[in-house]
Amino acid sequence: MNLLLLEEADFIAADRVILRDRRLVHLHEVHRADEGDSLRVGRLAGLMGKGRILRLGPQEAELQVTFDQPPPPKLPITLLLALPRPKMLKRTLQTVATLGVARLVLLNSYRVEKSFWQTPFLEPAAIREQLILGLEQARDTVLPEVSIEKRFKPFVEDRLPALADRTLGLVGHPGDFPACPRGLPLDQPVTLAIGPEGGWIPYEVDKLREAGLQPVQLGERILRVETAVTALLARLY
Amino acid sequence: MNLLLLEEADFIAADRVILRDRRLVHLHEVHRADEGDSLRVGRLAGLMGKGRILRLGPQEAELQVTFDQPPPPKLPITLLLALPRPKMLKRTLQTVATLGVARLVLLNSYRVEKSFWQTPFLEPAAIREQLILGLEQARDTVLPEVSIEKRFKPFVEDRLPALADRTLGLVGHPGDFPACPRGLPLDQPVTLAIGPEGGWIPYEVDKLREAGLQPVQLGERILRVETAVTALLARLY
Repeated sequence: MNLLLLEEADFIAADRVILRDRRLVHLHEVHRADEGDSLRVGRLAGLMGKGRILRLGPQEAELQVTFDQPPPPKLPITLLLALPRPKMLKRTLQTVATLGVARLVLLNSYRVEKSFWQTPFLEPAAIREQLILGLEQARDTVLPEVSIEKRFKPFVEDRLPALADRTLGLVGHPGDFPACPRGLPLDQPVTLAIGPEGGWIPYEVDKLREAGLQPVQLGERILRVETAVTALLARLY
Repeated sequence: MNLLLLEEADFIAADRVILRDRRLVHLHEVHRADEGDSLRVGRLAGLMGKGRILRLGPQEAELQVTFDQPPPPKLPITLLLALPRPKMLKRTLQTVATLGVARLVLLNSYRVEKSFWQTPFLEPAAIREQLILGLEQARDTVLPEVSIEKRFKPFVEDRLPALADRTLGLVGHPGDFPACPRGLPLDQPVTLAIGPEGGWIPYEVDKLREAGLQPVQLGERILRVETAVTALLARLY
């Protein structure tokens, strides 16, 4: 946790917060903090700043907080991700938040096992928990917008063309395609689709193309989903 | 496992192998393979090709194998990595192998907790196991060379200057430094140092500079080690 992320419910006054949950445990066990210590704080969806520990006990901590610094800008990207297996989903949500993705769409695909849609990690509270861990890692306060699309065809036919309009639309796909572009300006919007383990099937690549997304490749090595997300984003921006 | 990686001990003839270990389990449980099926195989440190399943039983499988394809080229990079915490070490070793790093040096740093050096995951067999998982993911057959340097100063003073000679030497470090270079030619050798959680201390950055490595940054977001490795490599090549 490189940033202590505060929510509305933590505030007892404009400049005072009380912590009782895993963040209190973290102060004790990882920061090994003492009363008087200062640490970086951020207000969810708001500014970042400093917190000074006024009281630190086994049940709760009280901090005085000030906010003066904007969070880092988001990457102007909508990431369409074929739903990964549950364990990979958790880590990938963290990574997506850490890297500053603005919008994430978790999408069905032929090669997504039906059972993956049953995982409790898709509950809104569970998704939010992983995103917050990712923000705390990166030092950011703004959650990515996440939506869930369990039906590939209606999403890609009916809604994706408008989403991808006036963006650079890309599908990460191995094969004889142009290399993924590099070093885009930070204000260039992108819509990027990343497939499941085993990749998109040809029908899906065709439908994504029709919606305005062009296949690009990242070399002959096959990457895990989380690694592919990081590699594609690091190359694009 | 996108490639069934075969070792010398698996061969009963030039074109025949017997499998009994986790790879047999994988054939049954993940590939749900049948006799007659073909799948991609690779010979550790050698060529890749096809394997046809001649016999598949609960105790062993016999495959007929042919090899005709070279593995993908390695990235000409020596990665110096401050030893990550054990759980992160395992995943990072896989990622390093998947991405095609040629040489990895696990290095001490002021912010590496002493206890990390006690982990059984640093045993040669344990390192090899994770590297092989990474090669199987990427479809590669060539293990990265891994060395372990428990003393920062003698390594950086006495051996790093020769290692880094005639390479582009870089230290990933947050701060007011030039951005990490992008899109190097695939034959440009690089020596890249990536710090521990919390980063290198200034003394270490100075010593790495003296050895020929220049600090570069990757933006204001703080990345986990595994994510930083992937992001830096994807940007460099």
